[in-house]
Order: sequence, then C-alpha cells, then structure tokens
Amino acid sequence: MTEKLVLAYSGGLDTSVAIPWLNEKGYDVIAVVLDVGQHGKDMDMIQAKALQVGATQSIVIDAKSEFAEQYVAPVIKANMMYEGEYPMVSALSRPLIIKKLVDIAHENDAVAIAHGSTGHGNDQVRFEAAIHALDPEMKIEAPIRDFQWSREEEIEYAHAHDVPVPIDLDSPYSIDENLWGRANEAGILENPWNQAPEDAYALTQAIENTPDVPEFIDVTFEQGVPVALNGEQLPLAELIVAVNEIAGQHGIGRIDHIENRLVGIKSREIYEAPAAAVLMTAHKDLEDLTLERDVAHFKPLIEQQLANLVYEAKWVSPLFDSLMAFVDDTQKNVNGVVKMKLYKGNAIAVARQSEQNSLYNEDLATYTAASSFDQEAAVGFIKLWTLSNTVYEQVNHVHSQPKKDTVK
Amino acid sequence: MTEKLVLAYSGGLDTSVAIPWLNEKGYDVIAVVLDVGQHGKDMDMIQAKALQVGATQSIVIDAKSEFAEQYVAPVIKANMMYEGEYPMVSALSRPLIIKKLVDIAHENDAVAIAHGSTGHGNDQVRFEAAIHALDPEMKIEAPIRDFQWSREEEIEYAHAHDVPVPIDLDSPYSIDENLWGRANEAGILENPWNQAPEDAYALTQAIENTPDVPEFIDVTFEQGVPVALNGEQLPLAELIVAVNEIAGQHGIGRIDHIENRLVGIKSREIYEAPAAAVLMTAHKDLEDLTLERDVAHFKPLIEQQLANLVYEAKWVSPLFDSLMAFVDDTQKNVNGVVKMKLYKGNAIAVARQSEQNSLYNEDLATYTAASSFDQEAAVGFIKLWTLSNTVYEQVNHVHSQPKKDTVK
Amino acid sequence: MTEKLVLAYSGGLDTSVAIPWLNEKGYDVIAVVLDVGQHGKDMDMIQAKALQVGATQSIVIDAKSEFAEQYVAPVIKANMMYEGEYPMVSALSRPLIIKKLVDIAHENDAVAIAHGSTGHGNDQVRFEAAIHALDPEMKIEAPIRDFQWSREEEIEYAHAHDVPVPIDLDSPYSIDENLWGRANEAGILENPWNQAPEDAYALTQAIENTPDVPEFIDVTFEQGVPVALNGEQLPLAELIVAVNEIAGQHGIGRIDHIENRLVGIKSREIYEAPAAAVLMTAHKDLEDLTLERDVAHFKPLIEQQLANLVYEAKWVSPLFDSLMAFVDDTQKNVNGVVKMKLYKGNAIAVARQSEQNSLYNEDLATYTAASSFDQEAAVGFIKLWTLSNTVYEQVNHVHSQPKKDTVK
Amino acid sequence: MTEKLVLAYSGGLDTSVAIPWLNEKGYDVIAVVLDVGQHGKDMDMIQAKALQVGATQSIVIDAKSEFAEQYVAPVIKANMMYEGEYPMVSALSRPLIIKKLVDIAHENDAVAIAHGSTGHGNDQVRFEAAIHALDPEMKIEAPIRDFQWSREEEIEYAHAHDVPVPIDLDSPYSIDENLWGRANEAGILENPWNQAPEDAYALTQAIENTPDVPEFIDVTFEQGVPVALNGEQLPLAELIVAVNEIAGQHGIGRIDHIENRLVGIKSREIYEAPAAAVLMTAHKDLEDLTLERDVAHFKPLIEQQLANLVYEAKWVSPLFDSLMAFVDDTQKNVNGVVKMKLYKGNAIAVARQSEQNSLYNEDLATYTAASSFDQEAAVGFIKLWTLSNTVYEQVNHVHSQPKKDTVK
Repeated sequence: MTEKLVLAYSGGLDTSVAIPWLNEKGYDVIAVVLDVGQHGKDMDMIQAKALQVGATQSIVIDAKSEFAEQYVAPVIKANMMYEGEYPMVSALSRPLIIKKLVDIAHENDAVAIAHGSTGHGNDQVRFEAAIHALDPEMKIEAPIRDFQWSREEEIEYAHAHDVPVPIDLDSPYSIDENLWGRANEAGILENPWNQAPEDAYALTQAIENTPDVPEFIDVTFEQGVPVALNGEQLPLAELIVAVNEIAGQHGIGRIDHIENRLVGIKSREIYEAPAAAVLMTAHKDLEDLTLERDVAHFKPLIEQQLANLVYEAKWVSPLFDSLMAFVDDTQKNVNGVVKMKLYKGNAIAVARQSEQNSLYNEDLATYTAASSFDQEAAVGFIKLWTLSNTVYEQVNHVHSQPKKDTVK
Repeated sequence: MTEKLVLAYSGGLDTSVAIPWLNEKGYDVIAVVLDVGQHGKDMDMIQAKALQVGATQSIVIDAKSEFAEQYVAPVIKANMMYEGEYPMVSALSRPLIIKKLVDIAHENDAVAIAHGSTGHGNDQVRFEAAIHALDPEMKIEAPIRDFQWSREEEIEYAHAHDVPVPIDLDSPYSIDENLWGRANEAGILENPWNQAPEDAYALTQAIENTPDVPEFIDVTFEQGVPVALNGEQLPLAELIVAVNEIAGQHGIGRIDHIENRLVGIKSREIYEAPAAAVLMTAHKDLEDLTLERDVAHFKPLIEQQLANLVYEAKWVSPLFDSLMAFVDDTQKNVNGVVKMKLYKGNAIAVARQSEQNSLYNEDLATYTAASSFDQEAAVGFIKLWTLSNTVYEQVNHVHSQPKKDTVK
Repeated sequence: MTEKLVLAYSGGLDTSVAIPWLNEKGYDVIAVVLDVGQHGKDMDMIQAKALQVGATQSIVIDAKSEFAEQYVAPVIKANMMYEGEYPMVSALSRPLIIKKLVDIAHENDAVAIAHGSTGHGNDQVRFEAAIHALDPEMKIEAPIRDFQWSREEEIEYAHAHDVPVPIDLDSPYSIDENLWGRANEAGILENPWNQAPEDAYALTQAIENTPDVPEFIDVTFEQGVPVALNGEQLPLAELIVAVNEIAGQHGIGRIDHIENRLVGIKSREIYEAPAAAVLMTAHKDLEDLTLERDVAHFKPLIEQQLANLVYEAKWVSPLFDSLMAFVDDTQKNVNGVVKMKLYKGNAIAVARQSEQNSLYNEDLATYTAASSFDQEAAVGFIKLWTLSNTVYEQVNHVHSQPKKDTVK
Repeated sequence: MTEKLVLAYSGGLDTSVAIPWLNEKGYDVIAVVLDVGQHGKDMDMIQAKALQVGATQSIVIDAKSEFAEQYVAPVIKANMMYEGEYPMVSALSRPLIIKKLVDIAHENDAVAIAHGSTGHGNDQVRFEAAIHALDPEMKIEAPIRDFQWSREEEIEYAHAHDVPVPIDLDSPYSIDENLWGRANEAGILENPWNQAPEDAYALTQAIENTPDVPEFIDVTFEQGVPVALNGEQLPLAELIVAVNEIAGQHGIGRIDHIENRLVGIKSREIYEAPAAAVLMTAHKDLEDLTLERDVAHFKPLIEQQLANLVYEAKWVSPLFDSLMAFVDDTQKNVNGVVKMKLYKGNAIAVARQSEQNSLYNEDLATYTAASSFDQEAAVGFIKLWTLSNTVYEQVNHVHSQPKKDTVK
C-alpha cells in the first residue's frame, strides 16, 4: 500500500527523475510547482511533464503576489543584504514553497514532503527548516541528496524510466530564479580569479550594450514599501517585474559574490537582481530623509541579523517575527518619492521628497547666517560630548602628555 | 602683553579675517596649514597670505603620507562608511590637523588653538574633541562661530583690515578636500528634491563623458592595506592619488547623501571619493575570500561603530583604539590581489585571488559528484540547526497547526 | 502682566524657593506633584506648602498605576539594567512627570515648564528632552541650575521669602524615590573607597538584621508582566509595593554603583530596588524557560540599547518605540510561575513552570539512554558547525601545524 | 597491526570501559588525564586504573596554572557569562585538554583521539571542534556516543572486561569539575519545578549554614586579572583556589540555570562557581571605575559574543582571537583594588580604588556648589542631544500634538 508524498517540482531533470525514484520507494507523488516569477517557464508544460513521468497529481500555483507582498516586501523594508551584497533570491522562495506544500500535504493526507536539493548547499536547510517548523512530524525525502548520482548515472536512470532528458543538459550553470532575481552557480565560475563570462547573465545587459541615454523613474513608497512607479499605483509584484525590465536594460543589478554558505564553505555566486538594486537603493535614500538619527544608526544591526536569519533558513522563527516587529514600527513614516537615474549599470538616487515625513529642515541645516540653528548650544554640547574622553586622557595620557598640574 | 595662538589656517576668507580678529583679541597668531592632498592649492601662496594678513608665523606641513598611512588606512581596513554611504573625508583630517597644531603650540608655548568652523556642523566638534583629548588645558578660540557675521559684514571687516577678498566668493558651495575625497555642501543643494548640478563636482567626470572602454586595474593588499597598483609597489598616498585620477575619469565615486550630522540635524552633502569607491570595494571583495565566516559576520558591527565614532569626533578615544585592535587582528590574512573593472561610474570587482590565504576551496564548493564535501553530514546538521525553532513551534504553534499527539 | 508656568514640585527646599524666584521672574506658578509611590510623603502637606510659598495653584496627581503599567512594565519585559546593575529609578518617573505637566500647561495656557534639577546630572536632560519632544515650543525654566546658590545663600533667600526650611537640611544625602526604587547620592558616598554607611539605606534591612528563615513567593507572569503574587491577582503597582515590603525585610535590592552619567562624568550612587531585584530575576528565569534560543541570545543587545536610551533621556523617541515593538513581540509566550526564595539579601529563582509555553523538554534533555534526542545527528552537525574554522586552520595554521599534504 | 589512539581519560566508568572497547576496535590506547583542579581526585589512582583496564600508556598532566592563566583569565577580563548566568566551567577545559592530547598524539604518531562525551550535549562539539581546528586530519572516536548503552549494558560490559565499577554508580548526578567551578546535571534536576536538593552541591555551604560574620577580602587587579588577595601576590590558579574555599564557606556561587545547549535543546544545570562570583563581580566593579564610558557601553556586546563563542565550541577560532584583541586593549588601565564583602551567599563590592587609573573625579561629580563641573554647558548639550527627536516630533507628532504654527 502506497503513501502520499508532496514534491517541490521544478520541471528539471533532477526533480523529474525523483518522481519514478520516489514511486519505487512506495510513494504516490503529488508534484507541485510554484510560479514565483521564474523567467520564461511554461507552467503548463511543467505541469504536464510531472504527470508524464509518474506523478499522480500535478499542481501549479501562481504565488507571485503572495511572494512579493509577504516575502519580498520585508527584504525592502529591512534593507536585507546578505554580507552586504546579496539581496536574497532563493532564500525567499523556499519558505513560501514549503508553506504551500505543507498545506497540500495536509489536504491530501500526505505523509512526506520531498525537495530537490543536494547536500552541499543552503536550500536543503531552508526547505527542511520550514518543514520542521510548519509540521515537525512530516517526513522528509531528499532524493537528489540521497542518490548522489553522477550526471551519467542520472541520465542512464532517466532513460531507463522514460524521463525526458533536456537538450541543454551540458549547460555549465545551475540556475534558480524568481521575480526578485536570478542565482547562477557552478562550473566555470568556481575559480574566483576567472571573470564571469557574459552568458552567465540573462536578466541584464552588459554595460557595454546599454542605452546611451539615462532613464529617470520615480518610485513612491508607503510605509517603506514601493506602491507606485512614475506616479502609477501598481501591485508590488507587477512593479518589481516592470523595474526588472527597465533596470535590466540599463545593465543594473549584477552581483559577483564570494559568499559564506550556511554549511560552512565559501562559494562563488553570480546573481542578477535589477529591481532589487533600484528599489533598495531608493528605499535607503528615503530612509535617510525620514528616519530619526538614532533609529537610522541602530536599524542596520537589525537588518544584518535579519539578512543572516533569512539566508540561514530561519524565515519561520520567532526571532524573525520579533525583528520584523521592530522594522515595521520604523517604517510608519517612510513615505515619499525617490527619483532614480538608471544609466550604464548605475542606479542612482538623485532626488527625494517626503511631504509628510521629511526630517530635513533647510532652515536648520543651512550654513548661512540666517539659520535658525542655535550655534551657542554647540559650545556646551562639545564640552559634555567629549568629557568622558577628556577625563580619560587627563588620567591615562594615552595620546597626550602628562602635565605637572593635572588634577586627578 | 600678547599670548601666542596656533590657528588652523586654510587660506580662505574665513580663516584670513580670523587673523586680524584674533590679533585684536590680543593673540600673536601662528598660522598652520596642512597639505593633506587638497586639489590645486598653492601652499606657498597660502603660507605668504597668512603673514600678509597679520600672522607672526606661517607654517606649511606636508602631511600626505602620515594622513594616508595613519588615518586613511584604518578606514579601508574597517570598511568605514558613515550611514553606509560616506567613506569619511573631513572627519579624517581633523584629528591629524589638531595633533600637529598641539605639537606646534607646545613647542611655541602657545596658550590657545583656533579653528575656522561655524557652530552648525561636525567639524567644530572634531577639532575641539581632539584638542580636549590631546591637551585638556589648551584654550580654544572659534572666531567664525563667535562673530557669526553675514557675508556682507565679513567682507566689510576684510576690507577694513586689508584682507584680500577672493573673486569667487559668490560660489554657492562650501568645500573641504583631502586626498581621500572632497565634500561639498551648501546653497542650491539644500533642497533634497533638487538634483545636484554638474558644477558641484570637481574630481569626477559625468558618466555621460566617460571613456567608452573600460579600464582594468589590479590592486594588491597586504594585511588589508593597498600596497601595489597593477603590480607596482606604491606608498599609500601615491597609490590613492593615482587611483583618484583613473577612477575620476571613469565617473566613479560620486555620493549624494542626506546625512545625520552629529549636532542633531539632517544635511545634504555631495561627496566625491573615487579612490575610496575603488579601494574599499576591492578590500571588501578580498575579505570575502579570506575572512572566516564568523569574523565576516561580526566585523560589520564593529565597522559601523567605528564609522560612527570617527564621524562623531571620537578618533582620539580609547574605544577607537580598542575597536581598531579588533580590526587589525582580522586583517592579518587579508592578503591578495583584486582585479577591478572601472567603467561608466562603476567600480566592479571582477576577479580576486589570495595565494596564501584564500579560504575558497573549489573542491568543497562544487556541486558536482566529485565534491569532497560530506553530504551526509548535512542531514544531522539540519536537525540540530533547526531544533530550537522546531520545539518552539511544537509548543507554541505560531505558524503551524497543533496536532493531537504533539508531545510537550 | 504675568504668564503661567507649571512647576514640577517636590515639596523640598529647592523647588520651594523656586516658587518665589519664579514669581519674581514674572510667572504665576502652578505647582504639580505626582505621587509615583514615594515612601512616607504627605501629599496633602506638600500640596498646601506650594500654595503657602506662593503658587497660584497646587495639584497632586496619583500616578502610581500609570507609572507601574506604562513605565515599570517595559523595564521588566526588557530586563533593562543600566550598565548591568541599575534597574532605573529616576529615569522612569521623569517622562511621566513631564507628560502630566505638559497636559496641565496646555489646559491652563501656560507658556513655560520648570523643573528643579541642577546642571550636573541626568535629570535635567530627562526633563528637558521630554518637554522638547512633547511640546517643542514650550519654554523651559531651570531655576536651581540658574541660580547656582550655595546652601547658605539658598537658606538666606528662603528666610527672606518666608519659605520654611526643613530641619533635616544637614542630611548628607540627596534622595529621589518612587515605587520602583530609591536613589541616594552625595557627600560621604563620593569617595568610592568609602563603604556606604547603614543610614544611606531606607527600604532594606541590613543582611545582618534579616530573618533567619527564608520566605518563598510565587510570581505569576502574563506576557512578561507580573500579574499575581502567591496566586493572588494584583494590579502591578500594588504587587510591586507588596514585593518591596517583603524583599526589603530580607535585605534584597541594595546597589552600590559607580556609574557613567549622561553628562560625561562618573558618579557613585546608592540605590535600593527590592521589588526590581526579585521581579527582574524571576522574569529572566521564566524567559530562560520560554524564549527560543535565537531570541534569548539576541534580546540582550536590544535590552542594553533600551537601558541606555531610558537612562539617557530618550524615553520619548521613535527608537524606544521600535525597540519596544521587538520586546513586546518576544513576550507573547512569557507566561508562567517562578518560585523565588528570599533570604539574607538573596533573591533566588528556585523553581519555575510554564504550562502552555515551556520549551524545556525533559525527554530531549535527559542524558539517559531513553532520550528521544537523535545522537547520530550530532556527528553531522559538528562537522558543518566547525567547518569554516577547520578550513581556516587548514589554510592559515594559526593554532595548528602545517601538514605536508594539506590540500588548499 | 594496531594503531595508536589518545584518549581523554577521566577515571570514571564511561572512559574506563571505553579502553577495552577501543582495544577491541584495534587501537593501542594512550590515556591522558589533565589536572585542571578537579576537587578530591587522586591522580595516581586514576593513572594506575587506566593501565589496569588496558591502556598501553597513562599520562597525568598538571595543567592548573596554564588553565588559570590562558583559559580563565580571558573569562574574567571579558566578564563572560553565558546567557547572563553561567561563567563557563566545562567549556573552558575542553580546548586545553585537546591541545595537550593533540601534542601527545603528534609525539606518539597516534592516528586518532577519543573523548568520552555522549551525543546529547555540548562537550562533544567542544572536543571535536578543537580537534578539527588543531589537526583537521586527526581521526576522532567517540565511544560513549557510539555504543549508546543503557546503564545495565555498560555494567555488564565492564564486568566482562574486568573494569571496576564504582560503588557510587547510582548517583543521580553527572558532574564535571575544574578549578573554575563544578557543573552538575541530570536525573532529579530535570524537572524545572523541582528545587535542587542540597546534595546537588559540593563546593558551597547552604546559606542556612554559613558563618554569621561577614568576611572582607581585597582583590588586586593588574590589567584586568586578579594578582593579589588581601595584598598578597598569588599565581592565578592559587588565588582562585583560595577564593573558592573562602567564598564556598559563605554560600556564594550557586547557579540554577535553564540553559540553551548548543545542540538546540534546553537543559537544566546546577553550577557552583564561588571564585567566579567573587572575582567577576570585583572585576566589573573595577571596570566601572576605570573604563571610559563609550568603552564600558560597547564592551558588553563583545562580552556576550565571546561567551557564546566559548560555550558554542569556538575557543580555537579567529573570531575569538580578534575579539580578545579588543578585550585585552580595554584592560590596560583596569588596575586597582576592590574590597569584597562575602556574607550569606552575597559577594558584594563595597569599596574600590585605582590609584593610577580611576576616572572618578570627586570634584566633577559632586552636586555641591563647589563643583568644577560647568553647569552652563548642560544647556547647550541638552539642546543638541535631543534635537533629532525634537525635530521628529515636530514633523510626525507621535507623542505630541500638532501646532498650527509648527514650521516644517
């Protein structure tokens, strides 16, 4: 008697051969693929292929809106950049995929969930962390990590089980993509002294081929989230897709990163995230205008912690929730418009305004004599601001010379 | 009977009128100007001008090497970026200027030091903090903050005291410069919705006017500090000047920043720091290759603290020294070469190597079957990595559904 | 024509002489005293005294409940301890006092608020920070800081203006008190090598005089806030008063602290906070049982930031609000009972339980063979947990010896 | 043909049965026991027992001085307290034990190192992390984790292999001890609502049985490390032993902690660390007197990170080294004497002095009119200290009411 299993299906060779392999292990496979904005994927074909290779059910879910609003928006609000460079791509879709799969598993009384990750990387941890959190008793299958086949063995198994083998199988790249970006990792890229070849990129023009005229766009934010492009209100998923398109043409958003994987090794990754480059730059610029100084100076510490948590498979965790409570509270006044210049690989914030919440006060800031700023106050401020260091030097003379008459 | 005072002199109108004003207050003025790499300044003329307007001595000190090695190198090693955007320009020269002035004051038995800052900004704090730390009993004069003249009053006073008035006095800009960069702040820039006009910049080409061919440079680091350009060993000051020249031509290093001044207000600043953009990007990239993960993930917190300290006038402080002890220890293995592509405003790390200290291990990182990475280990790792969150969900069910048979 | 001013009145000599002094300055004085749980103060007498010495109105407000629920509860939830030792006393009442005074000022069309702090300490900053935040245009008077009288001059002025001079005026101590504790600072205490004399304390028995039998109390928490004592539900203000009484008899809650004042100097303070010692120890103990590890390890950083903010006069600030949003989110599951042993100066958590939210799982924790913990998982966990350091040593050999056959 | 293995031997049943078990696996066993100050252990008997049960060599190393100076001193300097409560006991000895074992393994051409930890706890990670770091190619054996015997199976195996079975085998406690403290965990303690029974403690008197007269001791520190007791210079190991003795009699140093183990579960631990309670309290008190404020406020963040690192098996790591570079730099001026009152379970710092490095300045701190503190300075300081929050409220009115005439 077979039991049901829900598989995170992609349509690729790995998760396709997994289906007969899981069948042989005694499972009826429910294949599920989420549309989170992968570029140029034919979801109908993928759905059909799963059934063709042995799935008992095949489900496609359009999760683009939910992905943008529930998973990308927090990244923007918190300026999450793993190691200062990577705005999260794969790390974001994993918890959403699992959330959907767990729901489907419960609806179908499935006993197990399977994912297609290998044992080298971060995604296995992200998939399984989310499964453990959302249903600690759910069984987990990780066929690709288990069978550890060479490419040849995998193809042989595919032929033996009537699994179609893609013709572009000799691509040196391993790709993951969603509407927030594209991750590319493998083969030729692995020597850090090799420059990434042009065909490693798909969403962005080489700067050499970008238009000679800059493009200016206005991005409107409400409570830290982009809500309009050039004045036109757009759902976040659509806004991201539109900005990806424009910014990609201007060569914006390429990232070449030697990063620390959660499993303890360094890897070299090529990312493209055009919209992320534009929207996150704009967001930070608007925060510069609207966040009070102490908030602005403390928030990066929270942001870094959040970026690490998300990268390190802890999206579903109480610390994530509590840190986001902090972030959400800071975003109440992050309202306004930022004008971005997109040009030759650069996404530059050139102007910004916040009618209700700008803390910039021209009258206080000006150096002219007309300023309302109380210059006398500075004298007292400096004395007390520096007093603890002054006393320290009076006593310890690390950088200064002792005086005969120094009072201790 | 007069007493001696040492003045931080710049040659501009403000510190020039300060000399007769200080004379009238009863001081013999020793004017001191430091050459920290200001662009296109004629130091001989400045030295002569001080004497002409009433100084009793006028001293020029070439401090470029000391500035680069003692003040810029820590910024590079610690990736110091105030508010994530500003690599420190004025904040760096202030403590060095004061160090020299205090020495000269001691040599000449001067009783006071004067600086030319207004009461609105950060520099008054930086000057006076350093004076307090290096000689807590030294008297401080801040004539520009004190007299608070309008431009007209100042010119009138200058004419009355034979102080030459510069012909470019109607420039809307207030500039400070050293070899690490150029800060520009005032007038027309102060509305954040105004785009900065082209004439606000001096060290960098507009991207529109940059060469159509990229330039590649190799930067070699030893213990986190740049030591060679394209394989040629150079003293740091010379290396910075050379990179400024190249990168400026490619339009690299413009910064338009709404920043939080130490005195509690927001101001809008236009910076140019071409070499900083190139060298700090290269440095971070080499750290990605050579820093162990836990170090890489903790160091940003120290970096941010250092950036705040330096910006906020605490270069001479025990906390700065202790934090730099941490940073210096992390830099022992930051040795290697980074290939930078300079093109159309972009400074991109495209390749990097570290013969002795690279922690990137191609054999561990590869996703191919030949990897030496122990995939079995991941299974156990994931269980324990996620266990505390799993137990949390088993008990509290924040994101999951309670099960009848959940054991508490 | 006079204008109205609202005075934070205490009944003591300083704020009493301030009334005729403010009258002479042209103000009608509305004296306001808040009952925040000061020990043994006769509020009727204080109210009458204000009128006697020249106030036009005298108002007493019982603010104990609001103080406990709005100002003390956050301290407990966030384990706020300034410099690890001081659970906040005066810093808590200042923003509440100002909130009430600003409301009264607005109701009465008063133009100014006056406080009785000197220019040496923290409280002037706390009072004025809150005034600036709650009404930036409100005028501030600080008579004691302004007149800077010697004790003799103050008494002379009091006699001249019919202000009663207290008979205990020669007390060497300067006291501030509320239901959360008592701060004592001055005179004899100021040499850190002097032991604090017994009469510096008022709320706590010397350990030498405490009962020889321990007392056990059960404190029940809901969402991180104490709600019941020995099973009896109590409003927080009453619960604190009750615990102060019991714990004080057992000599609990004395603090002798060399602390860093906000104005840049070190001072020596003697505090008593019996209930704080008991309730905060119990709260932390319950958190140990109910907080997930990552939350438990990150929260102290937020706690320290909050303690600094509160001490440093920034209770009314957006950073405080955002940090408390984090804290409040963490406290949702901090529910349970802690048994405290109070004995000879010690407040010891000896037992704790949380029926709904305990994350302690005896079955996982036991070292016996019956444990459900997966020991095999540890092997894989250790490999990956240590991998980045292992690779670091393989490459750099800081603590290890190079091997001939080490693969790099 | 057998290979050599070095075993971390304790003399207990677990590591004794491990010897024949390892012999059967083909190893010649070199048993090594370190004397790190365990209470009441007969090292000669332990050494002999190893040989009796089958070791080919048995080595005892007196490592008390090295343990105190290289492993305990950093804990004191950095105020390391895991989760604010546990001053590290077992976590400190593990890396030292492994350092010695790796050296012995290299001298003897051994191929493996064995430890006696189970698979549930932290110590397996600490042992193996240190082995990986110090010799990544060394083989590791963990017999107790491997055989996972019940108590009965273990005794049966012992009888069958002539391993003596201790008569106190039915003790419900699992103990680890060194001169810094004693850790006790198991059985009856595992229900957090059970109070720890008196026989769980061995180093400390119950408060009920302590002397009725307090004891005062003076602890002298140089650069943050205790160097003298009551004026008498002592090596650190001897000083700790002496303070343990005195403080234990006064009932000081009991800890009852629900802690988060590295492997993801909560456990309940009973510690005794009398000297730690006294010396760490004294050290923090002296820091209060000698550390500049910014250092004092930043250091706790480093301290917490270090405590986590040490607890979490990363003593041998570059981050530990870099963080200790920070700590060591802060300790240069932590010189002086602290008078501790030891009484009825309390270790109270009652007086402190630092002739050379005290930053406490009575003249600045006093509230009397004679103070040299510049009260005028406070007025300006407060304006600028609060300005960013004031502007925030002027614009956003979170806590204040909008005014008609508020200038934005």
